Amino acid sequence: MNSTDGIAYARGRFVNLDEPVIPVDDRAHQFGDGIYEVIRVYHGRPFLLDEHLARFERSAAAIGLRLDRPMDELRELIFTALDRTGFSDAQVYFQLSRGIVKRDHAYPADTPSHLSMTVRPMVDARFHAARTNGQRVIFAEDIRWKYCYVKSLNLLPNVMVKQRALDAGVADAIFVSNGVVTEGTSSNVAIVVDGVFVTHPADERILHGITRAKVLGLLLQLGVPVREEKFSPADLLKADEVFTMSTVVELAPVIEVDGQPVGLQALREGSVLRRLQRLYREEIARACAPDVADAVGE
Amino acid sequence: MNSTDGIAYARGRFVNLDEPVIPVDDRAHQFGDGIYEVIRVYHGRPFLLDEHLARFERSAAAIGLRLDRPMDELRELIFTALDRTGFSDAQVYFQLSRGIVKRDHAYPADTPSHLSMTVRPMVDARFHAARTNGQRVIFAEDIRWKYCYVKSLNLLPNVMVKQRALDAGVADAIFVSNGVVTEGTSSNVAIVVDGVFVTHPADERILHGITRAKVLGLLLQLGVPVREEKFSPADLLKADEVFTMSTVVELAPVIEVDGQPVGLQALREGSVLRRLQRLYREEIARACAPDVADAVGE
Repeated sequence: MNSTDGIAYARGRFVNLDEPVIPVDDRAHQFGDGIYEVIRVYHGRPFLLDEHLARFERSAAAIGLRLDRPMDELRELIFTALDRTGFSDAQVYFQLSRGIVKRDHAYPADTPSHLSMTVRPMVDARFHAARTNGQRVIFAEDIRWKYCYVKSLNLLPNVMVKQRALDAGVADAIFVSNGVVTEGTSSNVAIVVDGVFVTHPADERILHGITRAKVLGLLLQLGVPVREEKFSPADLLKADEVFTMSTVVELAPVIEVDGQPVGLQALREGSVLRRLQRLYREEIARACAPDVADAVGE
Repeated sequence: MNSTDGIAYARGRFVNLDEPVIPVDDRAHQFGDGIYEVIRVYHGRPFLLDEHLARFERSAAAIGLRLDRPMDELRELIFTALDRTGFSDAQVYFQLSRGIVKRDHAYPADTPSHLSMTVRPMVDARFHAARTNGQRVIFAEDIRWKYCYVKSLNLLPNVMVKQRALDAGVADAIFVSNGVVTEGTSSNVAIVVDGVFVTHPADERILHGITRAKVLGLLLQLGVPVREEKFSPADLLKADEVFTMSTVVELAPVIEVDGQPVGLQALREGSVLRRLQRLYREEIARACAPDVADAVGE
């Protein structure tokens, strides 16, 4: 382990990634009682930082978690962490737990919440391949709790279903809840049917993805009609295009579900997906270009 | 903080409770990716240790988590921890995460699982009062994931609903899933109707409580008929007795739900609950008596 692998932050100080900094009684460690965000950094600049910070606040409110610090301080901390690493392409992960305190289900009365963070260089090769060539996936029962719109640390169902997909020799799984396609294990899912973009409504059953929201804006620019509506696995299987949206993988076509080819139109030049991918990259270039660095995050 | 508060164990060594021992990248800390047990210690001896260890193994298997060590070693470690504290009445908490490794949903290939533990003296006054006088509770929607039989570290719904009960001025909440009473936030629930003991079947919707299983055995001794069947909130409201079963609180009557008195027969001498409480205490006395100490855990 050395600092080119990245750095961590916990209990108010920057440390090496492998440094023990958390006692056993962190509520994240024992209950998954907390929330998190993952931010992508391009050219040394965080992309869509305001949006991630706003969602972090919403997640905190949803589980009654006090932030204990102004969002501006958190923003400053992220920039400080990036300065320390000097990484150009990176991922910032940060989480907030309900604090370090003797284990008890009840919320602690006077315990400060606990912020921790890691910053690591981005290794994008696998995701680049997924964006270009597409991903094979499986359908899986959506076994998660009711409030999937909270970006919480209770991710056991997500990791179990992701692993089931990997064990099946594919990249990921798409959740199906009572006949409705909800989302991927760490992405939102959209289909294009007869030129119309369809994605699950941003209700409590899916995470309200930052990339999903950005895509909805880009679709306006493209003049592609949008329906935020529930759709079924059968709808997905016969859609013209199928793709996932997430901070880390960005926009990536799904080309096979349970061994069946799907959405192959997405791979063609001029597809909704290809146009979105290009616009998304243009957004990144604009927002994270070195020459507009001073304006980023304003 | 001093050692009379208890001790912790993590990464292979005993430490003070407040000692930082875990890096940010523990999968328990970031995903709640792990399992746990809580064991009650009476007269310096763990009660129903074999049963807890067997459930720990079942939980591990359910989420594909390698134990990495023989159960005998874990048992030895618990006795070592108890010896170190010298506590007579205590709680042992231990958990196993899928290890300390760079954050990624996929299961790590060659990362050892990570065992941590705390041992604390038992403060029983509040639970003693609950056992004697009963608890007021509320009904709450069961918002949890599908596999509640796994004693996992994904406890955010449990802590949120517990806190909602406390905010409502009562002790706890009882989950209701699609018109069926499942269990409490950290206990199983039973009712007695016309002399018959009824509790939710041990399927994937409830934790298979160690105390619940012990009570089923005691009911055989008492000659009380048992039905492991689903029942509704309406069934509970008109039951003769209502009570919770858990390692820490043991058996405690529920005397009010959503402001309505329930199950008041449970408080009478000779009720099924009172007879079970007496037998349960006799079991503890037998299993944890100092003179049979050497035979405990065999």
